[in-house]
Amino acid sequence: MLAEIISIGDELLIGTTINTNAAWIGERLSRIGFEIQRVTTISDTRQAIEQSVQRAIQENNLVLITGGLGPTNDDITKVVLCDIFQSTLQFHEQAYATIATFLKSRNGEMNEHNRSQAMLPHNALIVPNSCGTASGMWFSRNGCEVISMPGVPFEMTTMMTNFVLPRLPQVFELPHIEHHHILLTGIAEAQCAELIAPWENQLPPSVHLAYLPSPGVVKLRLTCTACNAEETHALIAAQETALLPYVREYIFAYDDETLEENIGKLLITHNATIATAESCTGGAVAQRITSIAGCSAYFKGSVVAYANEVKQNILHVPQHILETHGAVSQECVETMAQNCRKLFGTTYAIATSGITGPGGGSAEKPVGTVWIAVATPQRVISQKFAFGDNRQRIVQRSVIAALRMVQKAPPDLPSREEQENDCIIFLKSPLRGI
Amino acid sequence: MLAEIISIGDELLIGTTINTNAAWIGERLSRIGFEIQRVTTISDTRQAIEQSVQRAIQENNLVLITGGLGPTNDDITKVVLCDIFQSTLQFHEQAYATIATFLKSRNGEMNEHNRSQAMLPHNALIVPNSCGTASGMWFSRNGCEVISMPGVPFEMTTMMTNFVLPRLPQVFELPHIEHHHILLTGIAEAQCAELIAPWENQLPPSVHLAYLPSPGVVKLRLTCTACNAEETHALIAAQETALLPYVREYIFAYDDETLEENIGKLLITHNATIATAESCTGGAVAQRITSIAGCSAYFKGSVVAYANEVKQNILHVPQHILETHGAVSQECVETMAQNCRKLFGTTYAIATSGITGPGGGSAEKPVGTVWIAVATPQRVISQKFAFGDNRQRIVQRSVIAALRMVQKAPPDLPSREEQENDCIIFLKSPLRGI
Repeated sequence: MLAEIISIGDELLIGTTINTNAAWIGERLSRIGFEIQRVTTISDTRQAIEQSVQRAIQENNLVLITGGLGPTNDDITKVVLCDIFQSTLQFHEQAYATIATFLKSRNGEMNEHNRSQAMLPHNALIVPNSCGTASGMWFSRNGCEVISMPGVPFEMTTMMTNFVLPRLPQVFELPHIEHHHILLTGIAEAQCAELIAPWENQLPPSVHLAYLPSPGVVKLRLTCTACNAEETHALIAAQETALLPYVREYIFAYDDETLEENIGKLLITHNATIATAESCTGGAVAQRITSIAGCSAYFKGSVVAYANEVKQNILHVPQHILETHGAVSQECVETMAQNCRKLFGTTYAIATSGITGPGGGSAEKPVGTVWIAVATPQRVISQKFAFGDNRQRIVQRSVIAALRMVQKAPPDLPSREEQENDCIIFLKSPLRGI
Repeated sequence: MLAEIISIGDELLIGTTINTNAAWIGERLSRIGFEIQRVTTISDTRQAIEQSVQRAIQENNLVLITGGLGPTNDDITKVVLCDIFQSTLQFHEQAYATIATFLKSRNGEMNEHNRSQAMLPHNALIVPNSCGTASGMWFSRNGCEVISMPGVPFEMTTMMTNFVLPRLPQVFELPHIEHHHILLTGIAEAQCAELIAPWENQLPPSVHLAYLPSPGVVKLRLTCTACNAEETHALIAAQETALLPYVREYIFAYDDETLEENIGKLLITHNATIATAESCTGGAVAQRITSIAGCSAYFKGSVVAYANEVKQNILHVPQHILETHGAVSQECVETMAQNCRKLFGTTYAIATSGITGPGGGSAEKPVGTVWIAVATPQRVISQKFAFGDNRQRIVQRSVIAALRMVQKAPPDLPSREEQENDCIIFLKSPLRGI
């Protein structure tokens, strides 16, 4: 089944807004067996919308449109869709009531712009919007389903989750497709390609490999399409098992799981807690941990020790360490981690200290130098990294490296060798079917 | 001048990677006068690449392609471009040397995959890549310039900044276009549309208004194209001046400036410092402040007090406040802010405490309830917000609201009235030409 996503909005073309909607929709559709042929982003103009929608209808089974339904004057998607589907706008009582209820809940008042949003095409299925004022519209023509939704991300995702995604399998006969994702860190794309070449060269034609790199992470996607669900599953599982020996040491998670989710589960399983002491990451590690709902079960808090005086006064890093070794040193992060662990009374503590630039680098410690330490009940583990020269990327990569060090640092281990062996045991919880 | 961006990569279609490249390029191109007609995202397949590039060449003056140049087997953009431009691959000595130098700097070794990246089309201008192994390629045909770049964001942005953007004005005669952006917070899109309707209705045809909303922010974009730079500037400046009285109280920045940049400048100007005490935002306010290079001049640090015991032990929130009013209360955030200010010895401190959900809400304090306080040398200002029920969005909106409260809270003011008057004075620094 072929699908296209059409994103409407000048803000996407001129880049003031990043098109997260298309990624979200693409991910959900491909997971249930649609092949996303194209994402087309166009302007809020009649010509662009008409042309793109007409072409997409001819080339696809499903067209999802986002944007251009807002209450302001530059949003004309609804009118153009009415023309394409020979529809007329009529007053939709239920939509009006939903808008009124929504506005009331936000202490807003119904104005002329909102009122016009209850005028909807007579021959479309109206998709209710519980988080905003623009209804979705579902049209059908010649075996192609066209669904128009608002561009505000959480309005669109709610509409998709509650209404569109549950209905798609009823309308389409979807294939037996299965995706497996294996998430690696600590290895570059080219290195990984070389490492797994012997495995890749023996892949059967029904199993396809793709590399999906992002900062600090290489995601391997295995896709398999076969005659039935059992065969698909058996084929892909066999290939995944064959791949594991090549990349085991780099695996940190599978499929949709994030490092922070996986660590959350591990900490809950081990009844352990964590805190962070952050210099160069400025709170980014804490923020990543707290992005997980329910993290209060294991996350206590953090000290962002950006200034050296904070490292001294709150984290009690001795002045002689700062003077002799500097803030970006093994001695400093190890002390930060150990004292953070004591301050918050947690099982683990993460500490980061590095040079994110653009200033502050030296020949000995260039921009991108980052020291990370993890304190456990038995020891403190630390590692030095070189993360390039891009400020934002240094922080992103530091966060992943820090969380990865926690994942690999189990408690109660007397020696590094045992620790490394135990890593695999500890990591078994995120492994699939091993 | 018409432009199209073609983004190549399965990871974009299936949504495992968000297309930030297209937004970045769109923003840079539109600023210098290109009209971005379309962003097309397609798969790593010969047919999709060939079809999209051929069509884009016919419809545009400039086509920027990203992705599909990596060292792995599923990247075929280079080969397809060679066919389209009747080119052959030849060994490029300089590119080979650049790849070798790059790999050496990362302690990597040249492998077969990397070596093939030095084979480049004979009739393209080779765009050097200082941050990776894939060179860019610049082709010309029938007045259309086609530039292919790697998909890794910081490789692409470096290539654009150092090579492509400086050359475009030499190749194209670009129009006199001017964009002004006015950034508002504390007002919804529909409310804003109603408020500025009298002004919008009198806009001359040469000045165009667009709404660019994102969580917690409404960005108004004024665009003007006229015969010459002076006329363009006069027209748009007059309209901006006429708009200001309608929205002045909601303005927090102009153009590319972010709230955190603006606050950084204000703090430096006033020789002031800041720290944060964060509960529900989990370090997100600190992270936003530290995203600005040079923030160590004014940012000292942060306590992420996720657990109540941290609020008590480190921020010294008295137990009776937590027992009587709860952690999400005016009393708690005000104490957090005041004690944070003392702990870090800063001019200002921000404190946040709220319920981000999905659990933890009650009838009295539903999910989305957030208290924010800002302590200044003279007082503590606090405000209660209702930020909906989406965890991520609650954090995003809290960060903006907290920074906005700092922007509006000048020091040394005896009364609230004077403070409000002074806001305008304090805010004058970000204002343009007023």
